Amino acid sequence: MVKITDISIHDVRFPTSEEQHGSDSMHVDPDYSAAYVIIHTDEEKLKGYGMTFTLGRGTEVVCLCIKAFEHMVIGKDLDKDILTNFGKYWGDLTNESQLRWLGPEKGVSHLAVAALINAIWDLWARREGKPVWRLLVEMKPEQIVQCIDFRWITDALTKEEAISILKKAETGKAERIQFLEKNGFPSYTTSAGWLGYSNDLIRNLCKENLARGWQVFKIKVGTDLEDDKRRLQIVREEIGPDRRMMVDANQKWDVETAISWMKQLAEFKPWFIEEPTSPDDVLGHARIRKELAPFGVKVATGEHCQNRVMFKQFLQAQGLDFCQIDSCRMGGVNEILSVILMCKKFGVVVMPHAGGVGLCEYVQHLTYWDYCSVAGSMKDTYIEYSDHLHEHFVDPVIMKDGNYMAPTAAGYSIEMKPEAIKMYEFPIGTYWSLKIASRHTVPTTSVTSHDK
Amino acid sequence: MVKITDISIHDVRFPTSEEQHGSDSMHVDPDYSAAYVIIHTDEEKLKGYGMTFTLGRGTEVVCLCIKAFEHMVIGKDLDKDILTNFGKYWGDLTNESQLRWLGPEKGVSHLAVAALINAIWDLWARREGKPVWRLLVEMKPEQIVQCIDFRWITDALTKEEAISILKKAETGKAERIQFLEKNGFPSYTTSAGWLGYSNDLIRNLCKENLARGWQVFKIKVGTDLEDDKRRLQIVREEIGPDRRMMVDANQKWDVETAISWMKQLAEFKPWFIEEPTSPDDVLGHARIRKELAPFGVKVATGEHCQNRVMFKQFLQAQGLDFCQIDSCRMGGVNEILSVILMCKKFGVVVMPHAGGVGLCEYVQHLTYWDYCSVAGSMKDTYIEYSDHLHEHFVDPVIMKDGNYMAPTAAGYSIEMKPEAIKMYEFPIGTYWSLKIASRHTVPTTSVTSHDK
Repeated sequence: MVKITDISIHDVRFPTSEEQHGSDSMHVDPDYSAAYVIIHTDEEKLKGYGMTFTLGRGTEVVCLCIKAFEHMVIGKDLDKDILTNFGKYWGDLTNESQLRWLGPEKGVSHLAVAALINAIWDLWARREGKPVWRLLVEMKPEQIVQCIDFRWITDALTKEEAISILKKAETGKAERIQFLEKNGFPSYTTSAGWLGYSNDLIRNLCKENLARGWQVFKIKVGTDLEDDKRRLQIVREEIGPDRRMMVDANQKWDVETAISWMKQLAEFKPWFIEEPTSPDDVLGHARIRKELAPFGVKVATGEHCQNRVMFKQFLQAQGLDFCQIDSCRMGGVNEILSVILMCKKFGVVVMPHAGGVGLCEYVQHLTYWDYCSVAGSMKDTYIEYSDHLHEHFVDPVIMKDGNYMAPTAAGYSIEMKPEAIKMYEFPIGTYWSLKIASRHTVPTTSVTSHDK
Repeated sequence: MVKITDISIHDVRFPTSEEQHGSDSMHVDPDYSAAYVIIHTDEEKLKGYGMTFTLGRGTEVVCLCIKAFEHMVIGKDLDKDILTNFGKYWGDLTNESQLRWLGPEKGVSHLAVAALINAIWDLWARREGKPVWRLLVEMKPEQIVQCIDFRWITDALTKEEAISILKKAETGKAERIQFLEKNGFPSYTTSAGWLGYSNDLIRNLCKENLARGWQVFKIKVGTDLEDDKRRLQIVREEIGPDRRMMVDANQKWDVETAISWMKQLAEFKPWFIEEPTSPDDVLGHARIRKELAPFGVKVATGEHCQNRVMFKQFLQAQGLDFCQIDSCRMGGVNEILSVILMCKKFGVVVMPHAGGVGLCEYVQHLTYWDYCSVAGSMKDTYIEYSDHLHEHFVDPVIMKDGNYMAPTAAGYSIEMKPEAIKMYEFPIGTYWSLKIASRHTVPTTSVTSHDK
């Protein structure tokens, strides 16, 4: 018996925009942030940690929305009310009869659900004394599907099909677990290719990342065609003609622009174009994919894809080659399980979105499960990696030669150090309160000097 | 010169769940509510009123999100900063570089944009001394398209195509305006068919609505097949075999269930099935539409459709026969203009979602513009109507023999009476503060009687 007694909610913002980390064609000044929750239980030492990723402004809105779901969480018995039929609980939470109008299953309300659901998985794994990936790979097929809400996806994947996929992957699972424990899972890096970076910086970052073991690189494009060409040329010079390089437009283009722009970048041999247009445009992606196939350019999307119904359609319409699930835009682990299983059925590789803050920590668990229990192969699969903000986590990712090494601590790796929260909680943390105070000082100083 | 100086935001909740108004298969206890904004200007008497519709809990989240957009609105000059290039302003607002991560263009953040954008239209129309529909019908085609952000829809509708559609509809426009001023626009009623209503109540409401002039009726279905049959039978008995009757499942079913369930209701000759499955499932709707066509049942959806990119795909995939735009789920008037124009190009009838609170007041303006300036015809078109909560508006809808009569007051008809806000603002209004106080009293009494 573990009873949930309370939830603490923190708005934590890291001032990454000051160094242009993470700037792309649509998000020019991100402050990597988290709507961060701690689930408290009647066992004083047993807590669950979860978060959803945001870009700064608006994090307070997600935090308030998490609070709006509290009555569905506080007071619940972890086993009896939640885990006994986790799929049903997930459905009840996302379909809270008044709150569902705010979505359903999209935007702020789904981000809030993700933070809570992920915290519940962290709590569960901590109680079992296992990292989330191991909790997952040790679950029986029947236990996995019991976590999934199949509403709206049975025309693409039934419970029986899911069980059959999972049973088939039991073969060789033990060897794959051993392989991961020894070697980890390969990643690609986005650290070298942000739009705000100078040419020299890109060149140096390519060299540095190659030296640290990375073989696959992703570069931001979409704002200026000639500048894209120049930067892709530099990257190709540094990494050579045979290493994989991907490009990412972050939703910048209309469908026809995406096709013509990418035809002009095809000479640099991009492996795939990520988010060429609106993340909601399933049919647009399908058309772009069809038009670019003769040029050897594949299509990836998913970090802004809101739920399993959208991914179902991307698969049905052949709108993507790589499915880039986000660990906290969909409604947490439960919904992601269903998308990974659908991808297996449709023969599409899952390559999770990471970077930001906390996303690398999260997604390693998901890919570990996918590799061990579903896909059964590493072919063409890399986890995204970006170098920022890992120092704020109690159990950060461990990278070795560009590989994500197996997490060993119990939980979902997302607990932040108390000093990070103390420093970066908005607006009351040390960093922000000093910054806000200094802003308030500026006009006074200015008036004073004007007076002189 | 009109400068926006401030925004007031109110969380207004009407306790409709207490009488089961509006209960359907997915929303069992709605408290029709509004995140309501008043835009103040440097002209004391010139204000803009806007709202977005919600179901109770979570309205505070939308209100906070409206506040998060304030820096994009307060301090702006209405003409220079907004109306001069309204389409660009709309795009800048929806793509605020940090807030867009919360969507983009969906869920809470898009509901918040809708409230603000609609308030700006109200402000604009009030300054011109016209109702919004007349402001719209008097705008030149070039002025209309200048309000639209064509990002992501140019593969379905270009600016030039939109102008051409609008120019073609200039013929006969003056006559259509005169017709509306005299006769109004036909509606259908949802008042008779909520799930929570008893059979006798349904029978009486059918009779009453027929007597008041309504010819077209919509009934909720989806929870129990036998009960659906029984209720549709009653309605058919009351309204006869030839009047149009529609059914609405409010997203309840998976794709295959929708098909088999509706085949079994086909004998009652439903004109269309509304929201048979997930509102995000374009391809699912397309399949349902194809399977039900031989049974004479058409498909309608849209009240939960989040933006123009989703509607674009519904049109491209032939996923609907009737497009039920919502006046405040998409990003306000500007985005709706683009959807109405796309529907004209694809030959689909626009039949707006109404009911709730304020939606009838809003949508009459949109259909008036559609009829006068775009569609040019009333064929198969009705505005939804529901009887609730009109008394709280300063300029409520005027119905005559089931027709929406032409609004004449300047603005978008959405200003609430001050006494409605005073009574129903949550949690500080008279109604809620008394209710909350009485709740707090109950346990005390209970403890006392236990002690006896």
